[in-house]
Amino acid sequence: MDTLTAFSDASLHEIRRDLHAHAEAGWKEFRTTALLAAELEELGYGVHLGADSVNPDERMGVPPENEVAAARERALEAGAPTEYIDRMSDITGLVAVRKFGDGPTIGVRTDIDALERQEAMDDDHRPAREGFASVHPGEMHACGHDAHAAIGLGVAREFADGEFDGTLKLFFQAAEEGGRGGKPMAESGYLDDVDHLLAVHVGLDEPVGTVVSSYDAPLANAKLDVTFEGEPAHAGGEPNAGRNALQAATAAIGNLYGIARHGGGQTRVNVGRVNADNAQNVICEEATMRVEVRGGTHDLNEYMLGRTREVIDGAATMHDVDYETGLYGKTTTFENDESVIETVEVAADATSAVDRIIRKEFGGSEDASYLIRRVQRRGGTAAYLGIGANNPAGHHTAYFDIDETAIDIGVDVIGTAVRQLS
Amino acid sequence: MDTLTAFSDASLHEIRRDLHAHAEAGWKEFRTTALLAAELEELGYGVHLGADSVNPDERMGVPPENEVAAARERALEAGAPTEYIDRMSDITGLVAVRKFGDGPTIGVRTDIDALERQEAMDDDHRPAREGFASVHPGEMHACGHDAHAAIGLGVAREFADGEFDGTLKLFFQAAEEGGRGGKPMAESGYLDDVDHLLAVHVGLDEPVGTVVSSYDAPLANAKLDVTFEGEPAHAGGEPNAGRNALQAATAAIGNLYGIARHGGGQTRVNVGRVNADNAQNVICEEATMRVEVRGGTHDLNEYMLGRTREVIDGAATMHDVDYETGLYGKTTTFENDESVIETVEVAADATSAVDRIIRKEFGGSEDASYLIRRVQRRGGTAAYLGIGANNPAGHHTAYFDIDETAIDIGVDVIGTAVRQLS
Amino acid sequence: MDTLTAFSDASLHEIRRDLHAHAEAGWKEFRTTALLAAELEELGYGVHLGADSVNPDERMGVPPENEVAAARERALEAGAPTEYIDRMSDITGLVAVRKFGDGPTIGVRTDIDALERQEAMDDDHRPAREGFASVHPGEMHACGHDAHAAIGLGVAREFADGEFDGTLKLFFQAAEEGGRGGKPMAESGYLDDVDHLLAVHVGLDEPVGTVVSSYDAPLANAKLDVTFEGEPAHAGGEPNAGRNALQAATAAIGNLYGIARHGGGQTRVNVGRVNADNAQNVICEEATMRVEVRGGTHDLNEYMLGRTREVIDGAATMHDVDYETGLYGKTTTFENDESVIETVEVAADATSAVDRIIRKEFGGSEDASYLIRRVQRRGGTAAYLGIGANNPAGHHTAYFDIDETAIDIGVDVIGTAVRQLS
Amino acid sequence: MDTLTAFSDASLHEIRRDLHAHAEAGWKEFRTTALLAAELEELGYGVHLGADSVNPDERMGVPPENEVAAARERALEAGAPTEYIDRMSDITGLVAVRKFGDGPTIGVRTDIDALERQEAMDDDHRPAREGFASVHPGEMHACGHDAHAAIGLGVAREFADGEFDGTLKLFFQAAEEGGRGGKPMAESGYLDDVDHLLAVHVGLDEPVGTVVSSYDAPLANAKLDVTFEGEPAHAGGEPNAGRNALQAATAAIGNLYGIARHGGGQTRVNVGRVNADNAQNVICEEATMRVEVRGGTHDLNEYMLGRTREVIDGAATMHDVDYETGLYGKTTTFENDESVIETVEVAADATSAVDRIIRKEFGGSEDASYLIRRVQRRGGTAAYLGIGANNPAGHHTAYFDIDETAIDIGVDVIGTAVRQLS
Repeated sequence: MDTLTAFSDASLHEIRRDLHAHAEAGWKEFRTTALLAAELEELGYGVHLGADSVNPDERMGVPPENEVAAARERALEAGAPTEYIDRMSDITGLVAVRKFGDGPTIGVRTDIDALERQEAMDDDHRPAREGFASVHPGEMHACGHDAHAAIGLGVAREFADGEFDGTLKLFFQAAEEGGRGGKPMAESGYLDDVDHLLAVHVGLDEPVGTVVSSYDAPLANAKLDVTFEGEPAHAGGEPNAGRNALQAATAAIGNLYGIARHGGGQTRVNVGRVNADNAQNVICEEATMRVEVRGGTHDLNEYMLGRTREVIDGAATMHDVDYETGLYGKTTTFENDESVIETVEVAADATSAVDRIIRKEFGGSEDASYLIRRVQRRGGTAAYLGIGANNPAGHHTAYFDIDETAIDIGVDVIGTAVRQLS
Repeated sequence: MDTLTAFSDASLHEIRRDLHAHAEAGWKEFRTTALLAAELEELGYGVHLGADSVNPDERMGVPPENEVAAARERALEAGAPTEYIDRMSDITGLVAVRKFGDGPTIGVRTDIDALERQEAMDDDHRPAREGFASVHPGEMHACGHDAHAAIGLGVAREFADGEFDGTLKLFFQAAEEGGRGGKPMAESGYLDDVDHLLAVHVGLDEPVGTVVSSYDAPLANAKLDVTFEGEPAHAGGEPNAGRNALQAATAAIGNLYGIARHGGGQTRVNVGRVNADNAQNVICEEATMRVEVRGGTHDLNEYMLGRTREVIDGAATMHDVDYETGLYGKTTTFENDESVIETVEVAADATSAVDRIIRKEFGGSEDASYLIRRVQRRGGTAAYLGIGANNPAGHHTAYFDIDETAIDIGVDVIGTAVRQLS
Repeated sequence: MDTLTAFSDASLHEIRRDLHAHAEAGWKEFRTTALLAAELEELGYGVHLGADSVNPDERMGVPPENEVAAARERALEAGAPTEYIDRMSDITGLVAVRKFGDGPTIGVRTDIDALERQEAMDDDHRPAREGFASVHPGEMHACGHDAHAAIGLGVAREFADGEFDGTLKLFFQAAEEGGRGGKPMAESGYLDDVDHLLAVHVGLDEPVGTVVSSYDAPLANAKLDVTFEGEPAHAGGEPNAGRNALQAATAAIGNLYGIARHGGGQTRVNVGRVNADNAQNVICEEATMRVEVRGGTHDLNEYMLGRTREVIDGAATMHDVDYETGLYGKTTTFENDESVIETVEVAADATSAVDRIIRKEFGGSEDASYLIRRVQRRGGTAAYLGIGANNPAGHHTAYFDIDETAIDIGVDVIGTAVRQLS
Repeated sequence: MDTLTAFSDASLHEIRRDLHAHAEAGWKEFRTTALLAAELEELGYGVHLGADSVNPDERMGVPPENEVAAARERALEAGAPTEYIDRMSDITGLVAVRKFGDGPTIGVRTDIDALERQEAMDDDHRPAREGFASVHPGEMHACGHDAHAAIGLGVAREFADGEFDGTLKLFFQAAEEGGRGGKPMAESGYLDDVDHLLAVHVGLDEPVGTVVSSYDAPLANAKLDVTFEGEPAHAGGEPNAGRNALQAATAAIGNLYGIARHGGGQTRVNVGRVNADNAQNVICEEATMRVEVRGGTHDLNEYMLGRTREVIDGAATMHDVDYETGLYGKTTTFENDESVIETVEVAADATSAVDRIIRKEFGGSEDASYLIRRVQRRGGTAAYLGIGANNPAGHHTAYFDIDETAIDIGVDVIGTAVRQLS
């Protein structure tokens, strides 16, 4: 397939495949953002980009500067419109706003980032077989955010004729994977006047034709990057002269798993990545690790995060090393509003391709939680809904794909719900 | 045997057996001190007792107040002279001083405490067979300090006729076991004008007839008592509500053994005792432990002690508990002066019962080190010597005993050396 | 108060106070068992004692032989009837059976052991103020089993006139604390023909007048005693020659708390007691610890117990030490039968002193679970019920007490329910 | 500089620079071996290559097959003589033998591998400035083995005229870094009839003009690669389903540092590299680590290695994971023979460029130890000597270099010593 240099003449299915082929991981969505912004402005939406779409200080898990710069360069080389790349500077994601009438402000939140994983390249995988697998090694739309972006644009097109009594705000959020982009967008200010918010996810093992009117009970979650910094020394000659960062990391890991279970509900802790890299005869001067905690509630998650910080601090003291921690990402919990759920159910019921409407537990974590809570705290209402998509393999795996019919259903259900909410 | 109520009419062998039978552990040597003081005053020595024989603030590893009071009471009940018990108040040990002439001041240091261990009570053990095993359960002269006290008194008797051109200072030190009494006596002020100091140990696996003119290269050593204090909680209901003192102790112990070996020489660390005592369903609110570190030099010992403190501090931080540490005891290293060693060798050579004179490594730790260093820092000289004693079983074991001939040899060699040093 | 030497002339309130004053901890209930047995035989019940009331091989957490012997001796000295002490040999607890008619067999299970804890002795505590606090230091009826025993006897008295068409089996179980006595009694054979079983607990923070017709969802629980056995060595001279039991225990504890949380429900792990006892300069040759695990289901508990055994085994391998483990106690889960619950509710409703009937979660663990499961597996039905008792302080605390009215209510409710079940 | 395709017309200085420029790390020395072999055959030596120069089963720390193949390919592309590459198949290193007369067999051992590290490329570094820095990124002659190879060839040239009454055996050993190649060459059989062996090292912070006639007291050392293999699982959904390789590694590391110090002398342990690499929400299925132990004697090293294996085994048991270990490398201790040392001293004395002859401690580890021990066990004698080389920066650092005069001195001293030993 040809790489698109503008979206306006393409169908949503073509756009989804183009985005799939140019998968951009979190905080690297330059091409995605620029192409979306270009058409949204054409459609009459005011477009807020880069530092104007988020609170930049709240961004988490931002890749090293040189990687971000390389992703920006890559987008330009692939023909992304320079004007929009310039306007976003080095921050991805966008908020598109159009006032049609004096009615309420309705928000629709979709996320646009890919995962950092390699896509399957064999013929068992439709994107590979049909030529739209990711051209970026190690980046893949394995969670359907390509379809989310297409749905968001589809909703924008739906209202482009201007027949709507209210304001429509479309949130195209960067860096959902890892829970890195939700909080900064929630604190952009653009959520503060939203009366009703809809967030959407495709797939999640539901078939095409099923609409989940409410995903409930997500887990709160926090991801912490930790670096212990000590001093190297020759392990044979004078081990005492070192300050052993690996011993600190080891003490931390052993005790992190031992954080007390909580009487108030489920908690989790895991260390997924550890790295210390020296010759065998050198006392480790640096060790890094990536920790994740979870809790069945926001407070349980905070308990785990607080205890994690104590353990890390104590481990560093023990071995006389320094350390730095950075939040890689964070999500919280949310509860959908019954009124919005019911509106979604009415909208789904009115959509002919929908044959099953259910409510279910979410199971995972989502940083849409921050946007939903922001809206609710200001008196608004919100719901997180799902669109079945026949995904042939699990989310985050190399063979993940979706049936693009889900995009059309998503646009229809959300479009109808938006009109009803106004 | 009858319990003595005064030493003056008894032989040194009888006195040693009486002390053996009334073994008093560290900081509990009330009867021993009082009986020694009584005869020393009779012999014309000025006697400094209790808070006047040590710097009380430097005392380490002092037993709980009620145990000390019970030991004092026990001494009175056994007929120890009340006057001296009163004068020492609640601190044991003494310094005896007599100026005979204008010559130099010579010090002799002996220690007087027993060990906290049970003595063998069967007929394989001569003290049991001959009726002078310890009457105090759990206290035993298993390191020959009963003989040391007798030697110190013997030297005092030797010079009682007044024929000596100098000042004699006899240090009867309490609480050598664990290294608890040396530092406070070293800082009493009485060492500051000592020109030459002799310290002595019997046994140490040498036969009667052998004199060790110089024990070299003792290890520096420090013993630390640690208590972690957290909060209890029901381990089933809300384990999160506890602050787990046992997890802190566990983290500490694991990491203490992992303190880096030192390129500069031998180091040691050990935890000998750990205690946490709750029902199985209670998060431990308190855990105690006893740590020992050693180093081939004073600096290596300080390295280990410093790292130990860091590990404990970090472990407490990790598990959000409080902690207290107290030095249970401490020793340092010393080097004997060649001039004093040679004097001892001449004295030993002049003693007919001596048939072998050697120098050797000490192997263990000794808080005479503080007294020796104090003398040397002021320009004096010192040596730590040994008297073979045919001990049938190892030091600190239940069957330890000595051949009392060693007492006579000790008095002869030290007496002769003292005269030569003046 | 006077110590009773027979129960037959005493009221249930007097008997409860007598038992409270002579609190006997698990597997030491010689006096309690003997006095109960004596009256039960008088009342016409057949009495099965000692090894005839349990499967002796299944007994857990039995104290050392000398402690059991001392408790037996203590009972005799307090005037417990010798005949029954002789018949029970060295095993406590009893099963009393009487066939009144051909109707069904109804079982009533009460437990009779005290806790190993000191009772408050000040006037704020009614048992102390009124002279029936425990005369056994370190043993206290702090969980109401004294009242349970009285209720069991009260039910026996209730039916002594013979008017009942069925068989009554009364289980007076030893060693419920720690979950040590339930499994052996469940495997005695006496449960196998029980058609309906009632088990009862007083207090549990409910007021007098409340009956809990069903305590639900107890946690399964297992308690493991662990001893690591290594080799001692001098920590200064040759630490390498030791096999360090404390390092093994430390490695075990650190990793026990780190056993993975379970996706299937709540789990718990705790180490309540650790002991290693050496001088500071000795590599620990022995370390003991007491571990408890729990699970929201039997399988979750087995998961924790299995992982615990792996951790202990690995820790011993790591430090080249031997180890032994012994189950100190174990409980499982149970579900009450709706038919029995409803019978209890009818009986409670018919009792004038009862003003509130509820069902609630149990929260803790109970080894009645084994008896209940045994009955149910054979096709019988069962329920675990509660009788409010105005306990002024929490269970297992020094100021625990009950309002003895609860005994009367218990006898009434159970008696009525037993008649209805036949 | 031009890349050499044959050594025979080049000077030793040119050859050293050519080898420096084409640094080949351990078990990758294809070009080095081939070019040396070609000239050695020209000079009349019998050349044993590949599997004929070592016991292949004893090779340690061999890189992955594809890396070895790539190194072989690289050598061919750089013009290394195909015949010799073919003859060595996939194993590097060579033994060259020539019998000149009936006298004794004299061995000379040099090593030929580079380090896995990046060379400095700026003008402060002479090899960079003068154009002979390594063309292989991440490989560098930072320990002078390029000079060793040149010295070995220089000695071969020295005797090429045939005037020598004995047999000369030249050992060009691969993979000395990490101690990977010594043992397999020692067990090739070629050492078994060597009467006298000389091994040599340049640099080691000595100036040009200094000869170290005997390096003493190397440490024994062993390097172990460990991989723990468990099962992944979703850390949020069902952490219990995983078998956590990282927890096993953590338990191992914490306890490895805690291996008891040894009363018999210095020991060391270090973990230089740890790697576990998953997303934060995945229980680690694999963790790798590189461990090094050392001992002041062969036995102390074996003690550490044995304890290391126990700790790893126990850690795997604890967390129910599998593991594999592989020796990355190993060295032992040796003692030089006085007769050979004195011969070296005479030879050095006869060399005009030598102005200082010393003996000193080696400090590090060397797998020439295995060759030396092999010769000595068969009744031969050996010494490990040093040639000062003005190295401007420490061994193993990016700016390491040598003064090539050292090559000439090395050839002279060794040549003279070889003649004297025959």
